[in-house]
Amino acid sequence: MVQYSRDRLDTSFAALSDATRRGVLERLGRADASITDLARQFDMTLTGMKKHVGVLEQVGLITTEKVGRVRTCRLGPRRLEAEVEWMERYRRLWAARFDELDEVVEDLKQREMSDARKQRD
Amino acid sequence: MVQYSRDRLDTSFAALSDATRRGVLERLGRADASITDLARQFDMTLTGMKKHVGVLEQVGLITTEKVGRVRTCRLGPRRLEAEVEWMERYRRLWAARFDELDEVVEDLKQREMSDARKQRD
Repeated sequence: MVQYSRDRLDTSFAALSDATRRGVLERLGRADASITDLARQFDMTLTGMKKHVGVLEQVGLITTEKVGRVRTCRLGPRRLEAEVEWMERYRRLWAARFDELDEVVEDLKQREMSDARKQRD
Repeated sequence: MVQYSRDRLDTSFAALSDATRRGVLERLGRADASITDLARQFDMTLTGMKKHVGVLEQVGLITTEKVGRVRTCRLGPRRLEAEVEWMERYRRLWAARFDELDEVVEDLKQREMSDARKQRD
């Protein structure tokens, strides 16, 4: 099992809670890009994009490198493993919980049918 | 492919960006609970827990039902499908991107070896 701190999940899910930031990750999944490129593509001011890039960089989802006047962004080393793991665990709990409910409903149905038969007999 | 709005992912990732809210989901994955139970278990005021429950309910991750003075919380109908799908897509992009980098590195190595061989010859 991957070890992770609760705080780390807090900040990574928070980083993912913005459509522009998710879009930037998808964009960088295709090719590296400068902040200027990203700002243009997402129709945003340079300042606004710098803020989003800062959030993603702080969480380790992207890395940036400045050469001359251009800061290039690329995907960082994090693969969202702990995050996917948490969600998979939740989905298993969810499925177990609803299967259980299905069983209860099925059980109730069987009992009703059995009671109805007894009343007929 | 599951259809989803960008806003919906925004709010669900934001709902998941808090350790207490994730804890509440895991707790309800085992059994339904009243807000009072949850507040006690997470060592939190009733008001604080009501707020967290409100966030989770608004996103559809839990449902609540009030009978008399007790409000019971249970897991809602959402299975985080769109969220998991987004993350899986990102991981595929990520993997492709880093495989590509590996290939570039491998290619450079091969060239270096070939150049070194040429120089020896």
